[in-house]
Amino acid sequence: MLSRYRFLSSYVPAKARAMVFEKYGNPKDVLRAHTYELPPLTPTTLHMRFLASPINPADINQIEGVYPARPTFTKELGGLPDGEHKELAVGGNEGVAEIIAVGDQVKDLKVGDWVIMGRAGFGTWRTHAAATPNDVIHFNSKEIGLIQAATLSVNPCTAYRMLKDFVTLKKGDFVIQCGANSSVGQSVIQIAKAWDVNTINIVRNRPDIENLKTYLKSLGATHIITDQELRSYKTKELIKEWTGGNVVKLGLNCVGGEVATEMAKYLGQSGVYVTYGAMSRQPFVVPASHLIFKDIKFLGFWMSRWNKTHSREEKEEMLNEVITLMKFKKETPGYAAFEEVLWGNPSESNESLRDKFLDALDKSGAGFHGKKQILKMQY
Amino acid sequence: MLSRYRFLSSYVPAKARAMVFEKYGNPKDVLRAHTYELPPLTPTTLHMRFLASPINPADINQIEGVYPARPTFTKELGGLPDGEHKELAVGGNEGVAEIIAVGDQVKDLKVGDWVIMGRAGFGTWRTHAAATPNDVIHFNSKEIGLIQAATLSVNPCTAYRMLKDFVTLKKGDFVIQCGANSSVGQSVIQIAKAWDVNTINIVRNRPDIENLKTYLKSLGATHIITDQELRSYKTKELIKEWTGGNVVKLGLNCVGGEVATEMAKYLGQSGVYVTYGAMSRQPFVVPASHLIFKDIKFLGFWMSRWNKTHSREEKEEMLNEVITLMKFKKETPGYAAFEEVLWGNPSESNESLRDKFLDALDKSGAGFHGKKQILKMQY
Ligand SMILES: NC(=O)c1ccc[n+]([C@@H]2O[C@H](COP(=O)([O-])OP(=O)(O)OC[C@H]3O[C@@H](n4cnc5c(N)ncnc54)[C@H](OP(=O)(O)O)[C@@H]3O)[C@@H](O)[C@H]2O)c1
Ligand SMILES: NC(=O)c1ccc[n+]([C@@H]2O[C@H](COP(=O)([O-])OP(=O)(O)OC[C@H]3O[C@@H](n4cnc5c(N)ncnc54)[C@H](OP(=O)(O)O)[C@@H]3O)[C@@H](O)[C@H]2O)c1
Repeated sequence: MLSRYRFLSSYVPAKARAMVFEKYGNPKDVLRAHTYELPPLTPTTLHMRFLASPINPADINQIEGVYPARPTFTKELGGLPDGEHKELAVGGNEGVAEIIAVGDQVKDLKVGDWVIMGRAGFGTWRTHAAATPNDVIHFNSKEIGLIQAATLSVNPCTAYRMLKDFVTLKKGDFVIQCGANSSVGQSVIQIAKAWDVNTINIVRNRPDIENLKTYLKSLGATHIITDQELRSYKTKELIKEWTGGNVVKLGLNCVGGEVATEMAKYLGQSGVYVTYGAMSRQPFVVPASHLIFKDIKFLGFWMSRWNKTHSREEKEEMLNEVITLMKFKKETPGYAAFEEVLWGNPSESNESLRDKFLDALDKSGAGFHGKKQILKMQY
Repeated sequence: MLSRYRFLSSYVPAKARAMVFEKYGNPKDVLRAHTYELPPLTPTTLHMRFLASPINPADINQIEGVYPARPTFTKELGGLPDGEHKELAVGGNEGVAEIIAVGDQVKDLKVGDWVIMGRAGFGTWRTHAAATPNDVIHFNSKEIGLIQAATLSVNPCTAYRMLKDFVTLKKGDFVIQCGANSSVGQSVIQIAKAWDVNTINIVRNRPDIENLKTYLKSLGATHIITDQELRSYKTKELIKEWTGGNVVKLGLNCVGGEVATEMAKYLGQSGVYVTYGAMSRQPFVVPASHLIFKDIKFLGFWMSRWNKTHSREEKEEMLNEVITLMKFKKETPGYAAFEEVLWGNPSESNESLRDKFLDALDKSGAGFHGKKQILKMQY
């Protein structure tokens, strides 16, 4: 077979920078910035450079070792200078990358294509990576811009699937959610709005609550209520007034604890209550009457499981639908409030890259406590 | 149209005795024994005499006014002598009755047939009743004997549906349940045994625990563990040993509280956790990880809802299947440990019938705290 490498044989793989860890623990303790060389390209692999990668809550749980989707520990990055082990994992699970070289047996992918990760655990907090075509998914991400492409596959897709897979939502139906200002929550608001589905949005109270309400309204939120208001005895009447007596079909919970328990009361007969996160780190309580008499189903959703159990075609279809919805909502401020962090500059030391990263980590989280932090790679 | 009443026109409806209430409250306060006359038979109605009716936990909740399946309050029984209202409801939801007269337009039912109730809320703690054919279901109940027929439609059917409708159980699969010595729990054990499905049975500890274990084993229980043992740190290993690493597919909960929370830990990946009761009157706690990562589904089951949403044909099919399972298990001591209470003797006063009933109520409940009490009617 003739060699058809689509680049000069003088192609020299770049030096990569990455946020890595060699053992589980508090991210502040175990994360290091690291420099390593990409392995030579082979006929079946590709090289890519990351453009942007967000910091998501699950990334942190993964480093802590409490997340079931494990990172990939590999010897290929070389050990840390002060390391105990030879194997390292790169943090981050989401991001958009541009292909910079492809082996001659690689089909359907070419230099310049933008790709996102096809599975959790690849490691996206880095400037460059070697991969196989199976690791990535190519789609028309350039249409929606860098930041949205970088944050498309986890949060908007989670919102989309949860709105689509558990109940059939029709125009005028009602969905209730807590943690409504999380990135997922904001996507829920926007997708529901695009479908004319009403959202009742629970957020934590804060001094500038009116600003947050205005912002969420601008995304398309129908009603907003704080966790404190939710506890009030008048809430039942209020929500009845909002819904005009229609049942709330779907509840989405990423918080847990008291607010999650409280929220379940507002689901209607045979409603579905989907838990996808536990930001408060508290479990919630289920009264038997919800289950037995109201027939409420308490289910969970995990995007990683969906990705594992669905085909590339289904993933591409989902991405394209979500992109269409995003374009539809172009007038809104975008899928999430975020902050860009320029990262990876070759002239910066590993110490400085690490400090920059930990700074971003501190500020991460939508809404009150921060903004989604997105590493924008520099070369 | 010619009159074809299948009885002498001299037929005089019997005087009926019933346990009634005119308002919700503590059963001890609101229940009265009452004497009333059946209304005359019409071409479309039937008269029946009850043979046996159990006291079930839900009957009590219904009288307390905390059960969503409401009793039928009607003026047809006449008011109580000391009553405030004209409308009365008869307690009890389950029982077997013999038809003693049918109107001439009634098809498929004849004098001498045994019937059970087609829906909740009919009122079965009485000697006689007038009904329409729609109120009752006729099946070959004589085959299985009086007590089993009287207690067939609620507990064994609940056990059967829960084992059948949520997961597909194959030979060798595992089910875990708490309140395993409840009547439903005993039916679960027996039906599972008939299907070669293994049961892990949680019961409350008690001084004579070995007797209970022996009894449940005789029904077909695979493993038995007390609530106290369940809390021990070794339980995980023990259950792993029992299951040989197979996942537990189904959990059945009628208790709630701590034991229900604890039990959820032993369900395997994508298991289904069905709640059908809350004997401890405590809610239980759900950790998000069970929902998100283990994909455990927390659902509820309510026989009354199933009955409402399924056809007479489906009900008859279920009853016949359950009867077959019961016959299959004839060598076992029967579907539940019970105690017969002779009730309704025409020569006894209403005061005496009431005292007798309240006595039985005190003793009701399977296992440690009592035995299922079954009114056996006297004439
Ligand atoms: N199951 C899945 O497949 C899946 C997919 C995507 C995300 N998730 C999960 O969904 C959750 C949100 O993710 P995200 O990326 O959207 O998050 P994000 O944008 O970083 O937002 C975090 C949200 O959590 C809230 N929050 C933080 N600490 C809290 C606490 N102690 N009590 C109550 N609320 C608290 C914040 O509200 P304030 O403004 O009040 O701080 C904010 O709404 C995370 O748990 C994440 O792991 C799950
Ligand atoms: N959803 C439905 O369609 C449906 C259908 C049938 C029954 N049920 C429900 O299922 C439950 C059992 O009914 P049943 O007729 O089988 O009951 P039963 O025969 O009267 O037995 C009662 C059971 O509850 C246990 N129990 C009582 N108090 C308890 C407490 N405080 N904590 C823990 N366990 C306690 C008893 O265990 P001990 O021996 O330790 O006292 C016994 O195992 C009830 O809640 C009933 O309403 C529901």
